[in-house]
Amino acid sequence: MMTKIGLPVIAINFKTYPQATGERAVALATTCEKVAKEHAVSIVVAPQIPDLFRVAEAVDIPVFSQHMDAGDPGRFTGHVLGETLVENGVVGTLLNHSENRMLLADVDASVRKADDLGLYTIVCTNNPVVSVAAASIKPSAVAVEPPELIGSGISVSQAQPEIITDTVNMIRDVNKDVAILCGAGISTGTDVKAAIDLGSQGVLLASAVAKSDKPEDVLLGLIEPIIN
Amino acid sequence: MMTKIGLPVIAINFKTYPQATGERAVALATTCEKVAKEHAVSIVVAPQIPDLFRVAEAVDIPVFSQHMDAGDPGRFTGHVLGETLVENGVVGTLLNHSENRMLLADVDASVRKADDLGLYTIVCTNNPVVSVAAASIKPSAVAVEPPELIGSGISVSQAQPEIITDTVNMIRDVNKDVAILCGAGISTGTDVKAAIDLGSQGVLLASAVAKSDKPEDVLLGLIEPIIN
Amino acid sequence: MMTKIGLPVIAINFKTYPQATGERAVALATTCEKVAKEHAVSIVVAPQIPDLFRVAEAVDIPVFSQHMDAGDPGRFTGHVLGETLVENGVVGTLLNHSENRMLLADVDASVRKADDLGLYTIVCTNNPVVSVAAASIKPSAVAVEPPELIGSGISVSQAQPEIITDTVNMIRDVNKDVAILCGAGISTGTDVKAAIDLGSQGVLLASAVAKSDKPEDVLLGLIEPIIN
Amino acid sequence: MMTKIGLPVIAINFKTYPQATGERAVALATTCEKVAKEHAVSIVVAPQIPDLFRVAEAVDIPVFSQHMDAGDPGRFTGHVLGETLVENGVVGTLLNHSENRMLLADVDASVRKADDLGLYTIVCTNNPVVSVAAASIKPSAVAVEPPELIGSGISVSQAQPEIITDTVNMIRDVNKDVAILCGAGISTGTDVKAAIDLGSQGVLLASAVAKSDKPEDVLLGLIEPIIN
Repeated sequence: MMTKIGLPVIAINFKTYPQATGERAVALATTCEKVAKEHAVSIVVAPQIPDLFRVAEAVDIPVFSQHMDAGDPGRFTGHVLGETLVENGVVGTLLNHSENRMLLADVDASVRKADDLGLYTIVCTNNPVVSVAAASIKPSAVAVEPPELIGSGISVSQAQPEIITDTVNMIRDVNKDVAILCGAGISTGTDVKAAIDLGSQGVLLASAVAKSDKPEDVLLGLIEPIIN
Repeated sequence: MMTKIGLPVIAINFKTYPQATGERAVALATTCEKVAKEHAVSIVVAPQIPDLFRVAEAVDIPVFSQHMDAGDPGRFTGHVLGETLVENGVVGTLLNHSENRMLLADVDASVRKADDLGLYTIVCTNNPVVSVAAASIKPSAVAVEPPELIGSGISVSQAQPEIITDTVNMIRDVNKDVAILCGAGISTGTDVKAAIDLGSQGVLLASAVAKSDKPEDVLLGLIEPIIN
Repeated sequence: MMTKIGLPVIAINFKTYPQATGERAVALATTCEKVAKEHAVSIVVAPQIPDLFRVAEAVDIPVFSQHMDAGDPGRFTGHVLGETLVENGVVGTLLNHSENRMLLADVDASVRKADDLGLYTIVCTNNPVVSVAAASIKPSAVAVEPPELIGSGISVSQAQPEIITDTVNMIRDVNKDVAILCGAGISTGTDVKAAIDLGSQGVLLASAVAKSDKPEDVLLGLIEPIIN
Repeated sequence: MMTKIGLPVIAINFKTYPQATGERAVALATTCEKVAKEHAVSIVVAPQIPDLFRVAEAVDIPVFSQHMDAGDPGRFTGHVLGETLVENGVVGTLLNHSENRMLLADVDASVRKADDLGLYTIVCTNNPVVSVAAASIKPSAVAVEPPELIGSGISVSQAQPEIITDTVNMIRDVNKDVAILCGAGISTGTDVKAAIDLGSQGVLLASAVAKSDKPEDVLLGLIEPIIN
């Protein structure tokens, strides 16, 4: 499902870090683009919603929203509409991030809506069972992230490898197509290699890149195991 | 509190109307700016959050967000951060709209955050009692909107004038400074005049302008009673 | 998973109907018990949460809660704790009802918690895809209910049989054990028969029984196709 | 507004503490009743919602719910209906507790609903400004509780006396009738005395009593400054 984006993928969630806001979001996305193009790796960026347009204008790598509501055009105020993401150059969205959990019914409705609009979806999950539930909704990708490791600097792929193994095995029993990512505490190429070796097709990370004062160096480290 | 913006004010909520999305949001905001400048009236626009940057780049009238979260920079995903609104040229925000109700504690936290950032706040409310509660939190403005009339085409100022009168009287007992707006079903200059005559200092409206194929004409009608 | 309760099952959600509140909840549950015992059918009742203790004291049929939170004993206020349900004689709970939708992560957490406590779980869903997602979380039962038919008097089993067929087929591909129920608009034995014939193992209904002034007669009609 | 209950009042929130669940909720409430009657002090108990009936049956002191929804009888599942609280012997409810925050509009709707049903309401708040907002909705009482001190064992009345003073002063400017309570970290008579001396008309507390293995002793300590 993520073939147009390319796997393995490094997805960078900008969260609301000051170093990744406004003009600095554009600068960081431009750095991501540079690394992606120079090394022919797949990097996706997810800036804050008010920054989406300026980032999508500036770079030629996939720009994702951090969230999308399930609603339709019309009488909604403050909602993040899929149609509006499309009009602003966005090609996909995170859904159900640990910091923005969604109703089960809304995960489904948002994935359906995104499908109709040609938007990619990465549904974040907190354990293998929830990952299978998410996979059964048929998003482009599932990203399993143990909440207690998010932002911890302790990598899921090294500290809790069974989370990734179980997620991969359980999802593949029921869905061969969905891309499987992992996240939480990923900050080095060693973490990425461990994740890939365990069957993950990419990683979702935030602070290691978005809070770094040398994001290019961090990115070069992260992609090391996936370039030849 | 809204003096820099100018009272009376016509605030246009673009909601998620397709006619007010993406490039069409820019076009509609530009029409609002034209009317505001040619007739020296105060018009505020509130486009969708992903459209804020492009609209704020394009026009020189106040651009508001439709919502703002109370969070701080850092570990939030999908949240609408005040700092990020500022970086994107936004000068204020609606809060607690009928279609995006907020926790009492978050209304307070968002107003405090907006104050710290120099952002204007319009807290939407559903009746006079809630309006007084909102006013006691000291936002820039309170906009009372009976939910059952929103989008109805039946104007609050003509159908339920006592809502406005009660709101004005009850708020003024405790807060002399907050601007008092009203909304719901406002679509003509007659509605605006009735609202002003009842003590309102402006109106908040959406569909009459945002869904119109002749928004300039609608705006000219709306401002008629407040220009000389 | 529902074998101790017995399949097919008729589950009666008392919602917040005045006819099924307080002493009248006890009376209605007693009527359900009478019909269940006299005709050896499986009937489950789900009264309002404040009524659970008095209903569970009064009847010897399974009493379910209408909701359960995922939280643990300790610092929660107003939450519906599994341990407390157990202490009040409750044997199971509805989760994620259309009128009380839950976060995906909380559906999982509540099902896990219920499992640990030996409580049955019926996860309500709005379509076949969400039903499969719910089934993958391994509750005791999934109850698919198209929201637009809830309370309509138009039976899902007669108006949208493919919802039931699709749900049964899609769930059975991945989960052989979970009981599959359906609901929305069920009010007669004909509706129940249609549901059973389509592969459902029971029904979840509310108003037809809970709002009736002759609930025993309605129940006798409902069970007619499942007694010999 | 709390005159029938009597001021000053000691309100005990049982939260979901295991020591205050099911039969142990009845036992704890009975201890509260004993102390209240023997010493002619006003003590209110707020057990978990499924425990309300059995507690209200057992004791003759005011029993409050920990939460109440704003909904009306009819099509709601899992909601805590005011009418149902009344039928179960409950005389009031906490609203908007720090662990169960409510929408601004729902605080208003629940207070109105409670008024119509003759139920007392204690709206919990997190700071003086929110307290004034809550007071303007005219509940029976406002209970200010700095969230960071809840369950801390550090008493608001000793650690942050200005929270109480400010709340009292700011509320009294606009509402002479509402009872003003405080909470967070209250565990001894000294804490209660400090709260009363600062203008509070009672305290809301939980763990000091509900987690104690000698709750009667703790209660006797708490009431010491308010008996003669």
